[in-house]
Amino acid sequence: MASLAFSQALLSRAISHNGSNKNVSVPASSVLKSTSPRTTFFHSQRSASTSSHSLRPLVRAAAVETTDATTDSTLVDKSVNTIRFLAIDAVEKAKSGHPGLPMGCAPMSHILYDEVMRYNPKNPYWFNRDRFVLSAGHGCMLQYALLHLAGYDSVREEDLKSFRQWGSKTPGHPENFETPGVEVTTGPLGQGIANAVGLALAEKHLAARFNKPDSEIVDHYTYSIIGDGCQMEGITNEVCSLAAHWGLGKLIAFYDDNHISIDGDTEIAFTENVDKRFEALGWHVIWVKNGNNGYDEIRAAIKEAKAVTNKPTLIKVTTTIGYGSPNKANSYSVHGAALGEKEVEATRNNLGWPYEPFQVPEDVKSHWSRHTPEGAALEADWNAKFTAYEKKYPEEAEELKSIISGDLPAGWEKALPTYTPESPGDATRNLSQQCLNALAKTLPGFLGGSADLASSNMTLLKAFGDFQNATPEGRNLRFGVREHGMGAICNGVALHSPGFIPYCATFFVFTDYMRAAMRIAALSEAGVIYVMTHDSIGLGEDGPTHQPVEHLSSFRAMPNIMMFRPADGNETAGAYKIAVTRRNTPSVLALSRQKLPQLPGTSIENVERGGYTVSDNSTGNKPDVILVGTGSELEIAAKAGEELRKEGKNVRVVSFVCWELFDEQPDAYKESVLPSDVSARVSIEAGSTFGWGKVVGGKGKSIGIDSFGASAPAGKLYEEFGITVEAVVAAAKSLI
Amino acid sequence: MASLAFSQALLSRAISHNGSNKNVSVPASSVLKSTSPRTTFFHSQRSASTSSHSLRPLVRAAAVETTDATTDSTLVDKSVNTIRFLAIDAVEKAKSGHPGLPMGCAPMSHILYDEVMRYNPKNPYWFNRDRFVLSAGHGCMLQYALLHLAGYDSVREEDLKSFRQWGSKTPGHPENFETPGVEVTTGPLGQGIANAVGLALAEKHLAARFNKPDSEIVDHYTYSIIGDGCQMEGITNEVCSLAAHWGLGKLIAFYDDNHISIDGDTEIAFTENVDKRFEALGWHVIWVKNGNNGYDEIRAAIKEAKAVTNKPTLIKVTTTIGYGSPNKANSYSVHGAALGEKEVEATRNNLGWPYEPFQVPEDVKSHWSRHTPEGAALEADWNAKFTAYEKKYPEEAEELKSIISGDLPAGWEKALPTYTPESPGDATRNLSQQCLNALAKTLPGFLGGSADLASSNMTLLKAFGDFQNATPEGRNLRFGVREHGMGAICNGVALHSPGFIPYCATFFVFTDYMRAAMRIAALSEAGVIYVMTHDSIGLGEDGPTHQPVEHLSSFRAMPNIMMFRPADGNETAGAYKIAVTRRNTPSVLALSRQKLPQLPGTSIENVERGGYTVSDNSTGNKPDVILVGTGSELEIAAKAGEELRKEGKNVRVVSFVCWELFDEQPDAYKESVLPSDVSARVSIEAGSTFGWGKVVGGKGKSIGIDSFGASAPAGKLYEEFGITVEAVVAAAKSLI
Repeated sequence: MASLAFSQALLSRAISHNGSNKNVSVPASSVLKSTSPRTTFFHSQRSASTSSHSLRPLVRAAAVETTDATTDSTLVDKSVNTIRFLAIDAVEKAKSGHPGLPMGCAPMSHILYDEVMRYNPKNPYWFNRDRFVLSAGHGCMLQYALLHLAGYDSVREEDLKSFRQWGSKTPGHPENFETPGVEVTTGPLGQGIANAVGLALAEKHLAARFNKPDSEIVDHYTYSIIGDGCQMEGITNEVCSLAAHWGLGKLIAFYDDNHISIDGDTEIAFTENVDKRFEALGWHVIWVKNGNNGYDEIRAAIKEAKAVTNKPTLIKVTTTIGYGSPNKANSYSVHGAALGEKEVEATRNNLGWPYEPFQVPEDVKSHWSRHTPEGAALEADWNAKFTAYEKKYPEEAEELKSIISGDLPAGWEKALPTYTPESPGDATRNLSQQCLNALAKTLPGFLGGSADLASSNMTLLKAFGDFQNATPEGRNLRFGVREHGMGAICNGVALHSPGFIPYCATFFVFTDYMRAAMRIAALSEAGVIYVMTHDSIGLGEDGPTHQPVEHLSSFRAMPNIMMFRPADGNETAGAYKIAVTRRNTPSVLALSRQKLPQLPGTSIENVERGGYTVSDNSTGNKPDVILVGTGSELEIAAKAGEELRKEGKNVRVVSFVCWELFDEQPDAYKESVLPSDVSARVSIEAGSTFGWGKVVGGKGKSIGIDSFGASAPAGKLYEEFGITVEAVVAAAKSLI
Repeated sequence: MASLAFSQALLSRAISHNGSNKNVSVPASSVLKSTSPRTTFFHSQRSASTSSHSLRPLVRAAAVETTDATTDSTLVDKSVNTIRFLAIDAVEKAKSGHPGLPMGCAPMSHILYDEVMRYNPKNPYWFNRDRFVLSAGHGCMLQYALLHLAGYDSVREEDLKSFRQWGSKTPGHPENFETPGVEVTTGPLGQGIANAVGLALAEKHLAARFNKPDSEIVDHYTYSIIGDGCQMEGITNEVCSLAAHWGLGKLIAFYDDNHISIDGDTEIAFTENVDKRFEALGWHVIWVKNGNNGYDEIRAAIKEAKAVTNKPTLIKVTTTIGYGSPNKANSYSVHGAALGEKEVEATRNNLGWPYEPFQVPEDVKSHWSRHTPEGAALEADWNAKFTAYEKKYPEEAEELKSIISGDLPAGWEKALPTYTPESPGDATRNLSQQCLNALAKTLPGFLGGSADLASSNMTLLKAFGDFQNATPEGRNLRFGVREHGMGAICNGVALHSPGFIPYCATFFVFTDYMRAAMRIAALSEAGVIYVMTHDSIGLGEDGPTHQPVEHLSSFRAMPNIMMFRPADGNETAGAYKIAVTRRNTPSVLALSRQKLPQLPGTSIENVERGGYTVSDNSTGNKPDVILVGTGSELEIAAKAGEELRKEGKNVRVVSFVCWELFDEQPDAYKESVLPSDVSARVSIEAGSTFGWGKVVGGKGKSIGIDSFGASAPAGKLYEEFGITVEAVVAAAKSLI
C-alpha cells in the first residue's frame, strides 16, 4: 500500500507539473513503475587509470561509474522518502526551516549521494572526495539527511532532532565550520554555485599540475544544486560564464527547476529562458523533465554530463517543491515554513509512510551502511596510489602534500622582501606585487588574480602563466569584471584544500560589489587575501565613484576579517606574512596607487602587533601627544611629529596598520602604545573617521573624510580635504 | 585630404577588426564613402499622436523619427571626429582619463545626440526628454563632448579644459549632481544599464498611468551605452532579465563591442555568446558590424529597435577602441590613459584633423547649433500639450505634476500612523508595512518592492497591483532575487523625476549584495528608501549567514545616507517621514522580524532629532547613568532603566534611532541628551559595537555582538550573546 500510494503521487506529479493543479493526490487506479532499475547504465570511461580499484570488491564506484546497479527501485523510492521525511520531521520539530526543497530534490540528491559520489563518511576531509555544494542553502535539511544516511558522524539522529537549535551541528543554513561533510557555507543565494566553480577550478588546476600519464592522483567531480533564486542572482551568471570559459568539465550543476520562489510563482519576475542562457554561456545543458520520479532520466543525465569533458553541465531537473504534500506542494507555502502537524500527517498518508518521525527504515539504513566501508576503501586506495606517486614523483608529491595538508614549506616567510628607509619609495600596490611574486614561488597553493585590473592592482605573477582552459596549471586567474563572482570563487578555492591560498584584487571601493562573498569568507573561515588597491582619495582623478571613504570602517566592523592598511614596504610584507599565516581569517590589504616613502621604524614584526610606535622622543610613556596614522597617512603623521618636535614637543607617532591585531594584544602592550593617561591623541587617515573614537578617546581628534571625495589630482584633494601635516600639527597643538 | 585619410582609416578598421592587425593606418588607394546620407530612413509610427509637432518647422524630431535627413556624410564624419578629438584633447590636457571609448563610440553617439534624441539643452531637466546613460562611465569625455556640442551650458569649452580638475563640471566619471545633462552617476560598471532600466521602468509606469488616448503626455526613450566590462558584471544580467520580463520596449542599449578591457583582449575572460544570452533573456538583438563608419547601419538598427515595442533592444555595435590612433587603437593601452603628445599628433594626421586642441570646426558648431531652438520648441510643444492635458484631466495632471516637480501633496505626513503605549505590539516590519501603505495612497510617486521577500519584508502595497509588462500602472515592483539590480534600478527611478520615491526591500544582511548601488544612491543624491527587515540575531534560526552584525556600523560610516533603526511604531513612522522628506539622501530602515512593544516616550517628532530622551528620572541634566538603545534593544534599555530606578538610581534612557540626524543637531541639544559631564553611559544594540565609542565616550560601555551570530531561536540567542536587561544593569552599576 505504501508503495502504491507513493507511485500514485509520482504519477500525479508528472501530470500536474506546470499546470494549475497544486494538489498531488491522485486516483488510486494509476500506478507507475520505475523502469529497468537493474540495468547497468554506465561504463568506466577511464578503465586504465582506475583498474587498481576493480581489484577490491568493496570499491563500488570506479572513477566515473555513476549508478548502483544493485539497488532496486522500491528501495530507491523508500530511500528518497526517507530523505523527505527526515527533512519534514526536523523542520516540524524545529517549527522552523525549509521543507519544500528537500522534498523536491530528494530523488536527484539520493542518486548523487548513494550512486554517484565518491566520499569517505568517516573522513569528510579526504582530499580526493567529490564535492557537493547545496547552493540553495535554505534546503539544508536535504544535506543533513544525506550526511546522516551516508554515515557521517557529524549528523547523528540527535543532531537531526536539534535542527536549528543552539550549539547543534545542524544550523539553519549549511556551515562548513559547524558540520564536517558540508564543504562551504551557503544560504545567501548564488554563493554556493560560485563556490562550486572555485572547487572545480581547484581540481582542474591541481590535476593539471600533478597528474601524470600513469597516475591520475587528482580526480574528483564537483556537484551543486542551485534553485530559481540562485539563477536570478547576478553572481551566478558571472561565475557560470567563467566556468564555461575555463572549461570546467567536471562541474555538474543541478538546477532545481520548481517554478516557485518566496513571492510565489517565478512567473512574476523570472521569465527568461535559462537553458538558452546557459548555452550562450557555453554550458552543456540537459533537461530532466521528471525530477520527481525519473530516476533513470537523472542517471542518464549524469552519465551524459560526465561524457562532456570540455564544458560544465547544467542538468535542469523539473521538480515539485514540497513534493508529496497534498495541500502545499507546488506552492510558496512549503518553501520556508514547517508543514504543520496536520499536513505532515496528510503527507505521510499521501506518500504511504508508516514510520515514526526521524525513523530510518532498516532496509534503507542497511542499504546506505555500505558507504562506510566503501568510503574507507576509496580513501585507502587513493592513499596507496599516493604512496606510489610519492615514490615516483617526490617533488610533486611534496608540493601536493603541502596543498592537501596546509603545512607551509619551512621558512616560507623568508621570501618576503624587507626594506630600509633608504630603499626607494613606491606605491604599496607595487610593493604588494613584490610580495605576491615572492610568495607564489615559495607557497605551492598560492594563486590568484584580479577582476580585470591586473595592471592596476599589480597582481600578475610573473613566473607563472594564466589559468585558462588549455593551460589550467597557470596560477594567474583572470576573473574579468566580476568582483562578486571572484570573491566567491576564491572562497571555494580556499575551502578546497587547506594549503590553497587564493588572493583576489580590485579597486578597494569595489569591495562593495563583493562584500557578500567577503563576509562569507570571514564567516566560513576561508583565508582569502584581498588585494585592494587605490585605497583612498589618493587615487585622484577618477573621482568619488572610485574613491573609498567608509570602506576601512566597514571592514573593521566585520567579524573575523583583518583589515590591513600598510604604510610602506615593510608593512606590506608584514601584512602578507600574517595574511598567509592565518588560514582561518581572510585579510584585506588596502594599498595605495600613489608613491610612498619607506619609513623609519616600520618592520614586518611590528605589523604583527597591529599598532605600534614608529617614532617617539618622549620618556616614561608620557608623550605630550600621540599621532596615529595608517597607510599613506603614516607619512603625514611622521612629518607632523617632526614639526612638533622641532617646537620642543614630546611626540609619539603610532602606526595602526591592523586594528584587529592590536585588539588581540595584552593590555600591557596596548598601554605601552596608547597610555590611558595620554588623552591628547590625533588620528589621521584618508577615510571616514567613524570608529576612530575608540583609538583617540573622548578628547582626541580624528582627521579624515566624512563626505565623498572628488575628481582632481591627488595632491589637490589632500589639500582640499585637509589631510595635511598642517592639520595634524594644528590638531595636536589644540590638545597639548 | 582630411576626408580621404579619415575614410582610409574607416576602411582599415572594417578590415582589421577581430584580426590581429592592431594598426589602423591604410594604403592611400582605398576610399570608402558613406552611402545614401540623404535618404529618409524612418517614418513616424505615431503620426496621429505627434501631428501637432509637424506644424512647427523648428521641430525636427517627431516622436519616433530617428534620422536627420539634412546632414551630409562629410559633416557627420567631421562631427564624429570633433567628438573624438574633444575627448583626446581633454584627456591629454588632464594627463588622465579614458580616450579609447569616446574614440570608438563617437559614431553611434553622434547619431544618438544629433539625429535621434529629443532634449532641450537649455533645460536639462525637461520632463519628457529622452534619457541617455553612459553605463561605461569611464568614457565620460564622450558625454561631455556631446553635451558641449549640443549646447548644454553645463559643459562649455572651459569645462572641457578643466576635465578631471578640482571644482570642474567635468569630473572623471559622469556625476548627475555635478553636470546637468548627466542623468545618473556611473563608473562602477553595470550600474548605468541598471539605472537605465529604472528610467525606462519609470517611463513605462507613468505612461500607463497618465497617457490618454488623445494625449501621450509621457513618451520618451531611454538609451544607454554599455561596454564589455558592464556585460561581465552580474548586475547587468539581473537587470536585463527584468527589463525583458517587464517588456521595456523603449529601452535601447548599445553594446560597445570592442573586445578590449583593461587586462587586454576580452578573450582571456569573456568568451560567452552575448547575443544569445540577451536573446535568452528576452531581448531583441541587432548586430551592427561596422560601428566605426556604418552610420546607416546604426540608423537602421535604431529604427528597428524602435519598431520592436514589446522588448528592449540590444544593439551590439562592433567598434575599435581608440579608433583613429595609428599605434594604440584596438589595444588596452588606449583604454585608460592619455595618448601622449606624439600619438595625439599621429592620430591627428591619421584622421586628417587640422584643428587646434578643443577647437570645434565652424560648420560642426553651426550644424549642432540648431539643437538649442529645436529643444526649446520641443519643450514648448510639450508644455502646450500639458496645458491641454491639464484642462481635460485635472486630477491626473495634478498627480503627474507632483511627480515631475517633487512637490509633495500638502499634509501628506498626516497619513502616517501614530501609536500609544497601549497600541498592540508588533514587529517593526509590520509597522513599516502600515506606513508604506499609508504613504502610497498619499504620494503619487511612491512605489517599490522586494527582492523576492515581499511576504517577509512586508512590502506589498495592498491598494495597488503589480508592475508587470501588461499592467505597468501597478506600483508593486517584483524584483526577483536580484538585490543589486533592485538597488540600481531604484536609483534610476528616483532620478527620473524628483517626485518618484522608490523603496526596495530585502533582509538587512543582504544589503551586502546591493551595497555598490546604495553607495551610488548616497553619492548621486537619489532618495531611495531601503526597507531592510530581519535586522539582527533577532531573526533567529536562519543563522549567521542571515544575521546582520556589522551592517549598522557600515552604513553609519557611509556619507549621505541615513541609517534608521526604529524601536516601535512611532519611530518607524518618524523614520518614514524623514526618509520621504529628504529627497537627496537615501534612508535605510533596519526593521525587526520579532514583535516589539509600543514604548512610552517615542514620537514621530522625536525621531527628527536622531537621538532623544525616552524616559528620565534625573534632574538638572545629571543622571547617574545614561542608557542608550536602538531598535529592538530600546525596550531592553527601558527595562534596565526601570530596574535601576527601582534601586534608586537616576537613569536616563535614550533612543539613538538615527545617528546622522543627531549629528546635525545643535550642540546645546546634544548636550541636553548626552551631557559631557556624564561619562557613565551604556549602549545596547544587537550589532557590532564598532563606532559606539563616539556615543558612550572613553569610559562608557557598549553591549553588542562583535562576532557572527548563530542558528537558534531568537530568545536563546539574546541570552547567549548577552543582549539582556541583566547585562545592561550590570554594566550600568559598574559605571555608577
